[in-house]
Parts: sequence; C-alpha cells; structure tokens
Amino acid sequence: MIHGRKVIGIIGGMGPMATADLFIKIIENTAAATDQEHLHVLIDNNTDIPDRTACILAGSDAPLGPMVESAKRLVDQGADFLIIPCNTAHYFHGGVQAAVDVPVLNMPEISARYCAERGFSCVALLSTAGTARAHIYEPYFKKLGIRLLHPSKVGIDNLMYLIYNEVKAGRTAHPERLYPELMSLEEQGAQAFLLACTELPLVFHDGGRVPFIDPTLLLARAAVEAAGGKVKE
Amino acid sequence: MIHGRKVIGIIGGMGPMATADLFIKIIENTAAATDQEHLHVLIDNNTDIPDRTACILAGSDAPLGPMVESAKRLVDQGADFLIIPCNTAHYFHGGVQAAVDVPVLNMPEISARYCAERGFSCVALLSTAGTARAHIYEPYFKKLGIRLLHPSKVGIDNLMYLIYNEVKAGRTAHPERLYPELMSLEEQGAQAFLLACTELPLVFHDGGRVPFIDPTLLLARAAVEAAGGKVKE
Repeated sequence: MIHGRKVIGIIGGMGPMATADLFIKIIENTAAATDQEHLHVLIDNNTDIPDRTACILAGSDAPLGPMVESAKRLVDQGADFLIIPCNTAHYFHGGVQAAVDVPVLNMPEISARYCAERGFSCVALLSTAGTARAHIYEPYFKKLGIRLLHPSKVGIDNLMYLIYNEVKAGRTAHPERLYPELMSLEEQGAQAFLLACTELPLVFHDGGRVPFIDPTLLLARAAVEAAGGKVKE
Repeated sequence: MIHGRKVIGIIGGMGPMATADLFIKIIENTAAATDQEHLHVLIDNNTDIPDRTACILAGSDAPLGPMVESAKRLVDQGADFLIIPCNTAHYFHGGVQAAVDVPVLNMPEISARYCAERGFSCVALLSTAGTARAHIYEPYFKKLGIRLLHPSKVGIDNLMYLIYNEVKAGRTAHPERLYPELMSLEEQGAQAFLLACTELPLVFHDGGRVPFIDPTLLLARAAVEAAGGKVKE
C-alpha cells in the first residue's frame, strides 16, 4: 500500500458492463508500473437495484434503498469515497450522500466543470429518457452558463432502444441509427455530444467533427485524483 | 434479485486488469437481457497484496494475510463463494479456504477437469516462475493423467518479462517474443497451451493450430454456474 492513498468504492451493477468500463478506465488512467502501485477499489456490482429510468418515469424511488445498502456496505468495507457509474442513478445522488459520511462524487457536476474548462457554451445531452425527464444534468450546466440541447422524441426513442435492447441486452449495437439525430443536433449548434448514459461510451467512439465527451472517463480520472493516485497524462 | 441466486466474491487486485478481465468474462458468459438478470458480484481489488511470485521464490507467505482479509471482507459483505483471478495466488488457496466458511473455487483444478473433458493428454503450462516453481498446476493434472510440459529457462524469462515489464506495467506487449518457445513446446507434443497466468489471456488470442486454454474464462463460467446463473452457450 502506498501511504495516504484512499480506497475507492463503486456502487455498480447499473449496468454491469458500464461498471467494468469505469473500473478499467480507473486502471488505465492510473500511472502505475506494478500491481501494488494501482489503487484499492471495492466494487459492489449490485444487480438487485431496479431500473432507474423505469422508476423515475413511474414516480418511484425504489432504487434509493438498494443504492444506500450498497453505499453502506462499501463504507463498512473501508471505502473512503464513492462513485456511481450510472448517470440516471444520479437522480438519487442526494439521497445516497445523505445516508453516508463519505463523499459521493457527482458525475454530472464533474462533466459540467470539464465542459466549462474546454470553453463549450452549447452541448448536446445523449441520455436515457429518465436522465432527460428528471433534468439530472441541467442545474450543473446552467450554473456554468452552458446550454444543453436535447434530442428529438425519435432521438430519445432510438437512444433507449440502443441502451436497453442492444447494449444492456448483450446484442450487437447499432449506434449509427443515431447519426441523423447527431447531425441535427450539430446543426442546432452542439459543440460536443455528452455520452450521459454509461452504456453509451461502450458503443460511441470519437472520430467525427464534433467530439464525444465521456462522463465515465471524467469520473474515473476524478476518482484516481481523489484517491491520491497519479493520473496518467 | 432472482431468487436463489448466489453472490460471487472476487479476491482481486492480482493484477487489477486481470480482475477486470474476469469480471467482464462473468458478464459476457451470463445469459441476461437486463441489468437485473446479471449476477451480483462483489470485488475487492486489493492492491495491498504483495507480489506472489516474488514471495514464493523467497519462501515467504506474506500474500496470505491480506488475501484472507479480502476473503473475510467479501464474506462479511454477503459473498456466498469466492474466486481468485491470479494463478500464482492459488499457492495460498488452501490457507484462504481454511479461513472462511464459504467455498473458494480452484482455478487449476477447474482447468485440469476441462483439459480431461477435451481429451488432452499433454498440455504446455505458460505461467509465472512462481506458478511453475511451486507446482501449482501439477497435482490436478497428474491426478487426471495429463502430462504438463514446461517452457525452457529462456521461455520462463520471456514470460516473466511479458507479464511484469509489459502487461502489469501498462506497456505495449510483445507476445510474439514467445512464438519460438511455443513452436518448441508443440514439437514436444503439446496439444494445447494453458494461459496459466491471468495476465496472459489479455495478450494471447487463439488462432494457431494449437489452441490456447484460458483458465480465467473457465473460472468465469464455473462461477456463473455456481451462482445459479444461466451460462451463455
């Protein structure tokens, strides 16, 4: 153990592959030449947490209870702070933070700060219907004077199909179905596409004129820093 | 939660990327169409565990203490059985099993059974110097009448360089350095190459005449089955 390093706790399972993606991004963004120089990470891949979007749309807070249970388990095990690799689950961020004495990093807030640092004034939000409906990203971007563009109803439907019927279902994903929507958002002034569902960085990769911003990657780098690890350049 | 399913506990960190590899193989080998149909997995990516090969070669059992701590933490958190994504760490399998009341699956034993089912009578062991020196795989293969071939001194040195100076160090890996050794093992009668260090499946992929056997994948599938999940075909 490297003295003074903190233990990272991941409230996972939302979904499992997005949890693995965050874990790998923490490993890849830690400057380390041996196993022992990497960070101590505790993961609760808790697949008992109900679907967040379904609950938000139905006005239910059913995910909060099992998220708090995971949070407490991780803190009991020695986690010094917590991270949640699910954007929609950040609807319950305040409730989880109120239940534990350690900090819970906030992925939408970290993403907004990054966009402000990059000088963006208008960004398109690609997310689940739950994240869009509950305005999870809005307050953080509004505070920093950044305009958020939303996909059309068809765009959100296509995103939901991609996230639920393809990525979470373990089937071949067709992100290209979204390209007309991305072109339309670009025409409306989007300077970047925010991949604000942790399943989306699994299938969208940079390459076009308008950059993709990956909140999972930003959260991973923030976690390495918060743990006292050396962030890889 | 799907009633009757068991919680999987992973004693991880040996190394972190091999831990992520096992986690992903568990997800990919579970037949599931939603987050909730996946298995509950607890991971302790405990990077405080000292290097296993260095300790075995020095006659020290220093890894056992922190491995037992991880095991107990995972059981306290609700793990119904444990798995260890590090072949060399299986030197301490008996010590960990003696310290907890839940089963600890045995990766070398699972690999030996698989080789017997495939009808192999002679297999080459690609591993760390620690796994080779401590004869971690031998008893299970001997019991099933399968001959284990070992790489030459130069082969083991090249494997150690690949594992420690490339994969664990996060540098570009050159598995092709091992090809002359693999050809020699094939000439000696190897019907398969056993990737008996969890860093090796990260860089060796099937394709040649002689198949690679991935104990991490076999452990993942055994874990899905032991947890009561549906193993993907």
